[in-house]
Order: sequence, then structure tokens, then C-alpha cells
Amino acid sequence: MTTLEQLNHCDIATFVATLHGIYEHSPWIPERAAAQRPLRNITALKQALHEVVAGASREEQLGLIRAHPELAGKAAIAGELTAESTGEQAKAGLHLCTPEEFATLQKLNSDYNAKFGFPFIVAVKGPTGKGLTRQAIIATFSRRLRNQPVDELHEALRQIGRIAEMRLNDLLGHVPAIGNTVMAWAEEIGGWSEDEDALTCTYMTLTHRRTADQLAHWMREAGMHVHIDAVGNVVGRYLSTDPAAKTLITGSHYDTVRNGGKYDGREGILLPIAIVRHLHERGETLPFHFEIIGFSEEEGVRFKSTFLGSNAVTGQFDMALLDITDRDGISMREVITQAGHDVSTIPQIARDPADVLGYVEVHIEQGPVLLQHDLPVGIVTSIAGSSRYLVELRGVASHAGTTPMAMRKDAAAAAAEIVLYVEQRCAQDQQASLVGTVGQLQVPNGSTNVIPGRCMLSLDIRAAVDSVRDAAASDVLQQIAAICARRNIECKVEQTVSAAAAPCAPWLMQQLSAATERAGVRPFQLASGAGHDAMAIARMTDVAMLFTRCGNGGISHNPLETMTADDAEVSGQILLDFLRSFKAKA
Amino acid sequence: MTTLEQLNHCDIATFVATLHGIYEHSPWIPERAAAQRPLRNITALKQALHEVVAGASREEQLGLIRAHPELAGKAAIAGELTAESTGEQAKAGLHLCTPEEFATLQKLNSDYNAKFGFPFIVAVKGPTGKGLTRQAIIATFSRRLRNQPVDELHEALRQIGRIAEMRLNDLLGHVPAIGNTVMAWAEEIGGWSEDEDALTCTYMTLTHRRTADQLAHWMREAGMHVHIDAVGNVVGRYLSTDPAAKTLITGSHYDTVRNGGKYDGREGILLPIAIVRHLHERGETLPFHFEIIGFSEEEGVRFKSTFLGSNAVTGQFDMALLDITDRDGISMREVITQAGHDVSTIPQIARDPADVLGYVEVHIEQGPVLLQHDLPVGIVTSIAGSSRYLVELRGVASHAGTTPMAMRKDAAAAAAEIVLYVEQRCAQDQQASLVGTVGQLQVPNGSTNVIPGRCMLSLDIRAAVDSVRDAAASDVLQQIAAICARRNIECKVEQTVSAAAAPCAPWLMQQLSAATERAGVRPFQLASGAGHDAMAIARMTDVAMLFTRCGNGGISHNPLETMTADDAEVSGQILLDFLRSFKAKA
Repeated sequence: MTTLEQLNHCDIATFVATLHGIYEHSPWIPERAAAQRPLRNITALKQALHEVVAGASREEQLGLIRAHPELAGKAAIAGELTAESTGEQAKAGLHLCTPEEFATLQKLNSDYNAKFGFPFIVAVKGPTGKGLTRQAIIATFSRRLRNQPVDELHEALRQIGRIAEMRLNDLLGHVPAIGNTVMAWAEEIGGWSEDEDALTCTYMTLTHRRTADQLAHWMREAGMHVHIDAVGNVVGRYLSTDPAAKTLITGSHYDTVRNGGKYDGREGILLPIAIVRHLHERGETLPFHFEIIGFSEEEGVRFKSTFLGSNAVTGQFDMALLDITDRDGISMREVITQAGHDVSTIPQIARDPADVLGYVEVHIEQGPVLLQHDLPVGIVTSIAGSSRYLVELRGVASHAGTTPMAMRKDAAAAAAEIVLYVEQRCAQDQQASLVGTVGQLQVPNGSTNVIPGRCMLSLDIRAAVDSVRDAAASDVLQQIAAICARRNIECKVEQTVSAAAAPCAPWLMQQLSAATERAGVRPFQLASGAGHDAMAIARMTDVAMLFTRCGNGGISHNPLETMTADDAEVSGQILLDFLRSFKAKA
Repeated sequence: MTTLEQLNHCDIATFVATLHGIYEHSPWIPERAAAQRPLRNITALKQALHEVVAGASREEQLGLIRAHPELAGKAAIAGELTAESTGEQAKAGLHLCTPEEFATLQKLNSDYNAKFGFPFIVAVKGPTGKGLTRQAIIATFSRRLRNQPVDELHEALRQIGRIAEMRLNDLLGHVPAIGNTVMAWAEEIGGWSEDEDALTCTYMTLTHRRTADQLAHWMREAGMHVHIDAVGNVVGRYLSTDPAAKTLITGSHYDTVRNGGKYDGREGILLPIAIVRHLHERGETLPFHFEIIGFSEEEGVRFKSTFLGSNAVTGQFDMALLDITDRDGISMREVITQAGHDVSTIPQIARDPADVLGYVEVHIEQGPVLLQHDLPVGIVTSIAGSSRYLVELRGVASHAGTTPMAMRKDAAAAAAEIVLYVEQRCAQDQQASLVGTVGQLQVPNGSTNVIPGRCMLSLDIRAAVDSVRDAAASDVLQQIAAICARRNIECKVEQTVSAAAAPCAPWLMQQLSAATERAGVRPFQLASGAGHDAMAIARMTDVAMLFTRCGNGGISHNPLETMTADDAEVSGQILLDFLRSFKAKA
């Protein structure tokens, strides 16, 4: 077994030799990373190596990729693989392929190489290290074949990074224990669903209540005092020895969208439970009460109303919502009552802000930023506010053949100008994470030979800073009016959402940053474009968020949402360190 | 009764005094038109007056409009209208309004004046002079209230022109007899339909066969030899006294789109029947056989195959089509056989080109060009060819909040660039009537908070000159590729139509132009952006087309399609003159 101590103090040649096999036939990677020594921990070592790859020339990157054997390819058959590759491919059962699977893989290999000019690379051990099934490998292969070349090059490098990460774990005997726990738990409750072939867990269904009970069970096992409140929040408290201590809250939601991902929300409940279990096993308490809340509702799927759980905690739960009904006509009051709760006690869920030290939420990023920066975690600066609009444009529908260009009032052409203006305007403030999207765009009943008389579009503008968002929205609305006036198009604009940004508290961000740095990761700040429970809780207390890298290009609200046990481990170590060194606001 | 002779030879003051009341309180119009005398006929007089209005300043035009009383308004009640306006409004039954109708009209008057700043004007006597119903007036009013100000100003001026036209008819005792016949016949067969509340007449339905029988009946009454051929074409021949004479063909189609207009196609059958009746009544024959074909099928509605009738006449009918079925699974062979025809005789329908002098088709324009040029007719230069494509763009669907602008692959943004490029590129050759349209545009299953991963659009490019269309299509395809490459968007382009342009024969156009000029109308050339039977017939013989102005902004394939009896009359006089002075190609 090699130790980090040895790697930090050996000469470069030994360093390179020891790390031989971490990257396929590419000694230049450890050679260049050696200069970064001493490295604080295995995470720092991984990051140093990743940075060398990311900073290499395109030719060097392609060389690294091409140094890899084809999956189940001729090299495997001819026994020409490195020991590592052979072993990993064998563990994934690729030597047990049926003739059909083998033929499929050969076809994929050939199509892939023809499209990208390099072999397909996948970390066959997968996000947990336990190995992907052959079916999963083939599905991933087929999906990635549709990627665009520039994206697939980066994906190949990320897979190489993931392979290297697991080889380093083996070399140094590193086991991501907290990460493994989180992944296993997420897998377990991720298997329970209202839908047969998808993960769907909406408010107060049997699946939802079963999930709540399981969370409560894990919390109790971890040494917490647990109750499920009247809106279904699962609340676990890890008590300080000082009964007068105040409370630091963490948590996230356990409901999902339809056909959602296993980590969205749930990571932020499971990860702190694993941390508390770790503390409890060591008999370690904290100088404050630590409360984990599994919020019952954030997504707004069943009753089209979001943040039911977190709004109850801040005392902002709107009791009028109890009368709204789901698509089967069942009211929220009924489903809560049927679950054995007393709706009249909902107002008592509200916390006393004077008793709360703050709120910190861990969440999967649900976007591609950390992935593209090769960072396992990031610190959220603000949860973006959003302004949403529906825009209806009316021109004149007329014959595509008989109406001269100068006589047209084409609603789609006006929409096109709007789309491009939104794109251009919202690219002007990356600092404030300004984004603008036309997600819906449609000429209703359009025909090839009819000039669009109508076009509908949606508009979604978000920014971490309200003034930045407001300025962009104002410019966009003004431009829409100008475009429509110039083109003689009638325009109706309806605002559907206006939500303020929730900035994270600098003092909490600073403590998260320090813990991140100690974990071996460069602290990196990013805004959250998506809404989170922290947004609701910010009305009661200071909040902060730690994002964990989201795999598969950052996809979320989708079964392809993924993260790795190692990234969960890094997130867990940061949260643990943060808790141990937490200083209340002065 | 005033005569044109008198108007041509009186002094200006008398001219103005005689035309007092043609335009509401606006003596400047006849004053300026007087300089155009002598005028060849009443059509030339009307055109001279229209041109003065069209050439007036915006203030003068607004003054003319504002000189008109409100419809059923206070002036009508107070008896302040000109004798003409009072009489016309009374004829439309506006003094018989129910209290509800009166209240509706007052509300419309007030909304209209608030939007446009002038009173609503409609020629209450309508397109035939017989008068609109109160319901039709209220519907027109409501529809025009939605117009855009610049369009509605022009529409008001056109309505004033139409009112003036009918007042001039009365003043000079002019009756558009041929036009009235065409309008009445179109109304009669326009009332027969497969659909209860819409005009639909598709291939070989009962409605379609009843229509064919009626056309045959009118042809026989007009003195023609008639048969219905094996594809349902109604063929009437007005024979020359010289049995060895060749044949000049005219015609158009009697099928319609679903919920179509009364004049599309049918004008080109009914107008020549009325002309032949006129000749026959006078015992006048022509030095050639004159054949009118009511083509059974042009629109392609029932069997998704167009030009069934005209293709049979040119010998291009594809016998394989007999096996295609309609949406009820009935084959074309069955419907033809059930109608009593023998499909095996279809090939015999083909004409011998050596026997044919040429083909001239009269058709409603189905577009706004003549309307905007204040011209009752125009001479077609070419039936545009068309290239159609379906374009599918694939980017990456991702979260609208969490994906920075620079990391997006937004399929709708790429589509927007394409839409604007098509618009800009296809505006570059008005001479060749180049037009380009994106009629279908859609982000499938778009969500406000998801960046479009897919976008579908259709592309329709037409021009009177094939090389112009090909160049534009090539530029557009090249630009699509460039946009997609720059944005990393995958793109599939499928060409669905490629049809060559059918240029009209200069020698026929020249004779139509001369007849147009003699009819008192400035000959004006325009391309046809829509396809017509002439396009199919052009494969067999030289073709030409005369377009009749299309009202209601040029709308067609719609129940709002309209033309006036006076414009039909002008078209009829031109066709009659053309026939009488026809010279075969040298």
C-alpha cells in the first residue's frame, strides 16, 4: 500500500513510477503534477492530476484518449490491454458478452470511432465503483454516440479522470465511506416510486410516506431525535450536550419530479445523516443542536404549489392551500389528514428565528458548471431570482407563395428576433449569473405554406442579483415592444413569475470555503439558477449552500442524473469539517 | 343618366359637379382626376379617381376618411348624412337594427375610433352590390377592429373606392352583367359542400359530382358541346365554324380545399362560360374551337395528390395513383368507378399538343399584390417553382436556470437565426418574386425552464425564376450548416418538394396585356406564388394567366376569400376582348 506521505516526499521519478498505470501510457501527467507537491490529501492529488490533463494541449489530450483500448475490442481479445484496463473490463463482465452484445459493441465502436476519431471510454466501474452492467454500458455508449464532438472529447477526458480517481483510491487504499453510504441509501429509496419504470415521489403518496419513514429510521439509527411534522417534514435533531444551545439547520427535500433523479434533494438529507452517524459512532457531539430536515415538498408536482415543507418551517405556509386539489380531485387537507397528521398544528411547525444559527444545504448542482471546471464541489453565492413571461405575438397569416416579403407580418420572424435578443442581452452579465431562455416556442397549427399569423413563446430570466435581472427583463420587454412596433405585430406579454434572489450569507460561505480548501479543492463560487429549499428558509435565517458536481453533462430532473461516491465523500468531508469548526455569526 | 362622353368633354367645374357625391365631401378628387380625360371607359375613370386618392397626402386621405359618417351613428340618427350614405345605410337595413345590434355597433364605433382615430367605413352594398346583411357588417367590423392601424387605413381607402365604384355605376347606368353572372353562379355552387358550415368540395364526393353536373348544365345552356371525362373534368367546347380549326383552352379547377373560398378555381370556369354565353347570345363564333375545362382536382385534399385533372389532359396522369386511398381507405379507382367512369380510358383524355393553340387561365390572385396596387387585374409572368424542406435541429436540452449562456446548445436560438436569414435572403430578389417562409416552427414539448434541445421548422422557398430560387435555397442551406456548426447543433434537412417554375408565354402575355390596356387598366405583371392548373398544362402547351384582385387583404383558402362583381366584369371584358382579337403564335 502506497501512502500520500510517500508520494509527497519521493523523487519525481519514483512519483511517476508509482503513478504508472493511473493514466494509460501517459507518464507526462504525473510528471507535470509532481510540482504541486506536497499535496494535502488524496483529493488534492486527484485535482492536481486533473488540472494537468485539463491544461494539456488538444494533441496531448487526444493522445491520452487514443492510448485507451477499444471497449471489448481487438486489444482485449488479443490480450494487449494494460493490466488495469483488462481487469476493469473483465470486472464489468465484458468478457461474458453474448454474441449479440458483442456485435452491438463492435458496431458502436466502429460508429463512434468514425464520428469522433478516438475510442469510446467509459469508467466501467461506474459512479459507485461497483461496476456498470453490460446493458448500462451499451446504453451509455449509444447515448454518447449522439454527442457533439467537442462535448464528447471533454466527456472522454472526464471518464479518464474518473478511471484515474478509482485507480488512485485502490493505490492509496482510500475508501469513500460516507460517499458510499449516501450512494447506497439514495439507491435504496430511489427504487421506490409511484411509477413503475421511473422515480416519482410526490407529496403524501404511499411512496412518499414510506420514504419519510425510512429517513426517520436512518436518522434514529444515526443517534438523532426524530419526528415527522404535520406537513410531512422528517426532522432529526442531533443534540448538543448544552441544552441551551441554539440550532444549526441543514436539509433538503425528499419529494421528486415525475421521472426524476435519485440525488436531487435527497443528497442534502442523506449526506448529513451519514455525517451524524459518523460523529455518533465516535461519540462526538457538536457545540450546537444540529437539525436535519427532510422537507416533504419542494417540487410542486402534485398540488402545483412549491416549498410546502420549508414554508411551514419558516411560518409562511399558506393555510388556504389546504383546499387545493390534485388532478384526481383530492384536497391537500385530505391527503395530510389521511397520513395521520393534524393540519391545525401546521402553524406550530414554524421555528423561532432567535433559536436558529443558520441554514446550510448540500445539493447536487443540476447543471454543468462544476463538471466543466473539473471540480467536485462549489459554494453557492445566491439562489437566482426569476422573472417569467408568456408572450403571444399576432401578425397576419397569409399565403407563403403569394405574399411578397415586404407585405408580410410574420409572427415567427418577430419571435426569432426576440429569441436572439434574449440570448445576446442575457450573455452580458456572467458575473451575476444572468441567464435568459426562450424554452417554449411555437407557431400554433403552422403550415409549410402559410406565413405564421401567431407565435407563442415563453421567457425565463434569472440572475443572482435582482437589479441585474430587473434590468435585463426591462430591456427585453422594451426590445419586444420595439420589434413588434417595427414589424406591425400585436403583442401580449403576461408575467407569470416574479421571485427575488436569495443571496447566501457571506459569513457562512466563508466557513464553507475554508472547509473546501482544507478538503483539497480550490473553493469555487457559483450562483444557483434553480430554486431550492434554502430560498424559502432565507426568509427566516442566513443560508448557504454547497453544490456537488452533477455528472452526465449536468442533467437533472431525469433518470440520467448522476454523481459519484467520491464527490459525495468530498462533500461529506467538507460538511463534517464545517460543522466541527463552525463559528456562529458574531 | 350621365354618359362617359359627357364627362370626357365637359369643363372641369361640370366634371367635378357631376361627380359630387361619388366621394364624401372631397371635390379635390375629381378635380385632380379631370386631367386624365379623355377616359377610355368607366373602368379607366374609376382607376383615374383611385389613383388620385392613392397619390394624395396622408392628411388628405385621413380627411377623406373622416368625412364619412359613423355607421348607424349619430349623424344617421340626426339625418346629417349625404343622401348617398343615408340611402346606402338604409338599404343595408341599418335603420332596422335591433337594440342589441345597435348597442353592438355603437360599442364597435367607439372602440374603432379609439384605436384608429377615424370612423369605420364599409361598402355596405358588398361585393355584388346587393348589400351585406347586418350580421355580415357586424362580423366585418369586429374583424377589422383587430387590424393594424396602417393596414386599416388602406382598407378604409379601399372601401371608399368600392363605394365610389358603385356610385359611378349608378351614375353612368353601368351594369357589370358578366361579373354579376359569375358572382351568382359562384354563390350557387359555393353553397354545396361536404361540410355543414364550410365550403368543402373534394374529389368525386357527391358534392363534387353535383358541382360537375351543374357546370356541364351551364356550359350546355351557353351553347357548348359538353362531356365529363373519366377523371371528372367537365369539358365544354364552343365550336368554330371551321371544323379543322385548332383549339384554345381555358379553365381551372372546381374542387376546393377544406373550408375554402368560393372563387379559387371556380372563377376560371364560370367566367369563360359567361363569356361564351355572351357570344352565343349574339350568334358570334370564334375562328378557333374554344374549350373550357373544369378540372376535377387541383388541391390534392382527398388523395394527397394534386393536379389529377390537368395531368390527365396533358397525358401525365400516373395510373399508379388509382391504388392510393383516402382517409377512409377508399381507393381512387373505386371512387372514379362509382361515379360511373371507366378508369381504363383515362390515358385517352390526353390532348394532342399539335391541335392546341395555347392555354389561358383566369384565377383569383389569392394574395394582396393587386389589392395593394389598386388594380382589378394583373398578368402573370410565371408560376413560381418551389423548394420545400423540413429541418430538425438538435442541441442539448438543459436547465434554463443552471446552464450558463456560454455553455448552451439551444436549438431554438439556432432556429431563430435561420428564420431571420431566410427572411433577409429572400427579400433580395423582388424582381423574380422570390419569397421564403418558415411556416412551421416548434420546440416539441417545450418548457419554460428547459433550454430547447430540439426545434423543428419548415422552409418554403419560391421564385418565378428557377435559378433565383436555386441560388436562394443553396444560400439558405449553406447558412443553416454554418449556423449549426458555429452553435454545435446537429441538423437534419429533408427536401420534401422541388418543383420547377412554369414561365408564361410572352406572346400570350402580350395579347392579354393589350386587352387589359383596352379595358382601361394599366397592364401590371406579377408572378404567381401559388400553383395552378396552368403549371401542369405548361408541360403540353404555352400558357398564360390573368389574375383577378382578391379582397379582404388577399386572403384565400378561407371563407373570407372575396372578389367583386366589378372586378369579375373587368376580367371578363379582358378575356372576351382577348378571344376576339386572338392571334395564334406565328
